[in-house]
Amino acid sequence: MFQPKEKIITSPMSGFMELLPAEQIEFNKIFDTIRRTYELFGFIPLDTPVLERTEVLLTKAGGETEKQIYQFKKGDNDISMRFDLTVPLARYVAEHYGQLTFPFRRYAMGKVYRGERAQAGRFREFYQCDIDVIGNGQLEIQFDAEIPSIIYMIFKQLGFERFTIRINNRKILNGFFESIGMANSSTGIMQAIDRLEKVGEAGVREELLKLQISTDLIAQILKFINLTQSCSDVISGLKGLAINNEQFLQGVKELESVVNFVKELGIPNSNFAVDLTIARGLDYYTGTVYETRLDEYPEIGSVCSGGRYDDLASHYTDQKLPGVGISIGLTRLFDQLYKRGVIKTGASSPTKVLILPMMDDLGPSVKLSALLRQSGISTEISFVQGKMKKRLGYADKLGIPYAIFVGENEIKSGMYALKDLKSGNQEEFSVENLVEKLKV
Amino acid sequence: MFQPKEKIITSPMSGFMELLPAEQIEFNKIFDTIRRTYELFGFIPLDTPVLERTEVLLTKAGGETEKQIYQFKKGDNDISMRFDLTVPLARYVAEHYGQLTFPFRRYAMGKVYRGERAQAGRFREFYQCDIDVIGNGQLEIQFDAEIPSIIYMIFKQLGFERFTIRINNRKILNGFFESIGMANSSTGIMQAIDRLEKVGEAGVREELLKLQISTDLIAQILKFINLTQSCSDVISGLKGLAINNEQFLQGVKELESVVNFVKELGIPNSNFAVDLTIARGLDYYTGTVYETRLDEYPEIGSVCSGGRYDDLASHYTDQKLPGVGISIGLTRLFDQLYKRGVIKTGASSPTKVLILPMMDDLGPSVKLSALLRQSGISTEISFVQGKMKKRLGYADKLGIPYAIFVGENEIKSGMYALKDLKSGNQEEFSVENLVEKLKV
Repeated sequence: MFQPKEKIITSPMSGFMELLPAEQIEFNKIFDTIRRTYELFGFIPLDTPVLERTEVLLTKAGGETEKQIYQFKKGDNDISMRFDLTVPLARYVAEHYGQLTFPFRRYAMGKVYRGERAQAGRFREFYQCDIDVIGNGQLEIQFDAEIPSIIYMIFKQLGFERFTIRINNRKILNGFFESIGMANSSTGIMQAIDRLEKVGEAGVREELLKLQISTDLIAQILKFINLTQSCSDVISGLKGLAINNEQFLQGVKELESVVNFVKELGIPNSNFAVDLTIARGLDYYTGTVYETRLDEYPEIGSVCSGGRYDDLASHYTDQKLPGVGISIGLTRLFDQLYKRGVIKTGASSPTKVLILPMMDDLGPSVKLSALLRQSGISTEISFVQGKMKKRLGYADKLGIPYAIFVGENEIKSGMYALKDLKSGNQEEFSVENLVEKLKV
Repeated sequence: MFQPKEKIITSPMSGFMELLPAEQIEFNKIFDTIRRTYELFGFIPLDTPVLERTEVLLTKAGGETEKQIYQFKKGDNDISMRFDLTVPLARYVAEHYGQLTFPFRRYAMGKVYRGERAQAGRFREFYQCDIDVIGNGQLEIQFDAEIPSIIYMIFKQLGFERFTIRINNRKILNGFFESIGMANSSTGIMQAIDRLEKVGEAGVREELLKLQISTDLIAQILKFINLTQSCSDVISGLKGLAINNEQFLQGVKELESVVNFVKELGIPNSNFAVDLTIARGLDYYTGTVYETRLDEYPEIGSVCSGGRYDDLASHYTDQKLPGVGISIGLTRLFDQLYKRGVIKTGASSPTKVLILPMMDDLGPSVKLSALLRQSGISTEISFVQGKMKKRLGYADKLGIPYAIFVGENEIKSGMYALKDLKSGNQEEFSVENLVEKLKV
């Protein structure tokens, strides 16, 4: 009786993205665009280990995050997988403090891990693409002001037109809550406000009522966060509130600096907004906060977020290290855009041209391939046996755009037939002209 | 009494490489060179999860490898960290078989994990940079023959002149052992031979004696492996042995194809050798095998190894998938070369030019920075407060090569002072000429 081999499950585990070639190529294009833009702004590459001592990660992780950590023991070591790139940065800066130059501008683009319960659109392994500027003791507000220009350049380079970088300042929120005597409830209020887009004004009102805030104060809070809608110039609107609270005024001043800077850069009004409802859930941020939404896909939520924090590495060092940074969750972004058809796949190979040897001697084909590669043209030689149709079929399936035929005649005449595999057109070129044609 | 805060250990765990900015920049250059070369040969990028189902990895891992695996449970999942990129490739090809085009050429460059006992020069987390060509049912020998040209291009691009790509064919070894009636001991003999360089001929003889091989056969074995030294043309030497064993003859034929191909490519004799002592410890390889040594640093051992295998994914699929591939252990390579001063560090930042605003209005500086970045020039604006000396000191420490001063006069005249921070020379340029000058 036939016994089929018992096979092992070969699908990746749930929550782990695995792409087909054409998808991976598009993913890498986005990755490279982000990386190139970060480097154009002078951010320094940093690659820290995926594994950290558990005590390093648990210092910062709390509640949900802690439960999600992949943790294990090996020998004497209690080891965990990093759940973000910020905690490793804090550890790195504390460790190498004396060898770094401040303000320390670094980018990091790598995989992080969260063992969440599997949910649609949530990943257990995902890429984060982070930049942070870390000051030694202090960090000028201009560094906050520069961030939107980086976000703007990235999303423009990625081909987006309709996106909005939203900013706010936590000092404005904190100062406002102080001014209405609600400083102690500010975390809860902020969390409620942060959900405005999801639950609407009525929903926010309801949540605020649960916090036992008086209807009078709730009205003030809603009027405040509605400045974004009701005012053409939110800064003037904020000043118009005439709140005499130091933190509030400091926040307005900082926000104004950032807004002015953005105007200097010529970022269109349609790509930028002050949004007083943005608080960024975490308690971590202390000043400017950022979110970025794709206008056509609001349901994706923020695709690039971050903010200013007072002290990066207080758990690891006594040095005061304020910073500002943003993060792009690339795996989720890719997944969401790909599902919606915003990212379209093209070729399944980086190869630009497939050389088809028409003779037993592979020498001329090999030499031509070396020459093309020296000019930066991705080149493959077709080594498979079989009919021309099958060999061209390989190129076709991969989306390789061109084929060159190399036979006795071509070598004698020095003219090679280049076939455009999309149009089917075929033309003859000298080697130099081949290089010119294919380099484009 | 003063109580210092209790601080957490901030060093990375032993066996985990962590680089300073200038080092990371050099590491990335090598990474990018390897990646670019792989793509020039038409290899398709692939990025599989770092975490796999334990059963997937344990199928292939044996003995030492199994002990080294980082394994843990989370919820119902038994999870392990990948210890190489080949097993995930096998799983991937089995899983996505119907969606791939064969021969499937893929590259993968990522971190793998081995929880070895800490030893100098050994890493628990390290980058592997792999290519493999996988055939569907069969794979022509020309794919083996192409591999040395890829290795050659990579090490040339990395700036090496003196390196040797050594090749052999396991069929020659197996056939030879069959011909002397030692087929059953071939694994042990090969392991002994593989250590020739480390232990010398006397050492190999001793190890072979331990395997209870007669002195007569040992003499034959040593004569055979010494063909490499005693023969200017090893292929002729092998043919001269007049061994009438099918596997042996097939191996010689394959080796000859690879050698001829390498000659066609014009790879200098000094960068290439047939070496009959190379067996590549693993039982995995079945045909061509490769090793690459840096002639000036033989103690580093092979820096790029691989070979031909009959069946990639027999544990996961009934499809027969022969392949050929190589791997570069980048973390170890970088570590070894850096220690020896072969890799030298330069700048600690990708920034090409630091713009120094000489006035309160940052607008002109911001505009100039945007213009330079559009031309691909990595640009930073100095936002820090303080004296010019301090601000230039920042650029100096990072190795940023140029600074531009932007003040009232510059804006009026349209001529900007560009300071070469190495030479100290300062010249004036129009904006267009600035771009030209800095683009180089």
